[in-house]
Amino acid sequence: MTDNDNSIFVGNKPFMNYVTAVVMQFTTKNAKTVIVKARGKFIAKAVDISEVASKRFLDNLAASKVKIDSEEFKNDEGKDIRVSSIEITLTKKK
Amino acid sequence: MTDNDNSIFVGNKPFMNYVTAVVMQFTTKNAKTVIVKARGKFIAKAVDISEVASKRFLDNLAASKVKIDSEEFKNDEGKDIRVSSIEITLTKKK
Repeated sequence: MTDNDNSIFVGNKPFMNYVTAVVMQFTTKNAKTVIVKARGKFIAKAVDISEVASKRFLDNLAASKVKIDSEEFKNDEGKDIRVSSIEITLTKKK
Repeated sequence: MTDNDNSIFVGNKPFMNYVTAVVMQFTTKNAKTVIVKARGKFIAKAVDISEVASKRFLDNLAASKVKIDSEEFKNDEGKDIRVSSIEITLTKKK
């Protein structure tokens, strides 16, 4: 899936920044879908953000698709490291 | 989805214990599917376990379904707490 304006990449910022960003996409930008993406330790945070946005703020949202993946690469010491990722597609219910 | 013998609930045990448990279900118990479940901070670990099991150990596995959910309850101080959960269904490819 290619990046688009509706993707939100979860990182170190405060939790509510991301929840607000998701809600804003649906309310002020009238998006039909928003994709919440994260890697590694931020995966659980991405799930929390999606759940809070869809159940506490906008109750007509659902996680229509959840995709997990991973990529392997070598770290500075030449050791193989695998990093997992998640993509949560939130969609407005009819 | 109801619990069955093929569910593995991820918690505090060492990472490789869970990977081995997943792989054993498919190899020695000949399971068609295994469901990796986790809550809260263990969600990222569950994704890592699923990815390592399916890409490093058994390359004919795929995450056929990933479901996220959450439940809200009151903690000891009467504050509302929301805890997210994930269920990753791993299936043998034909």
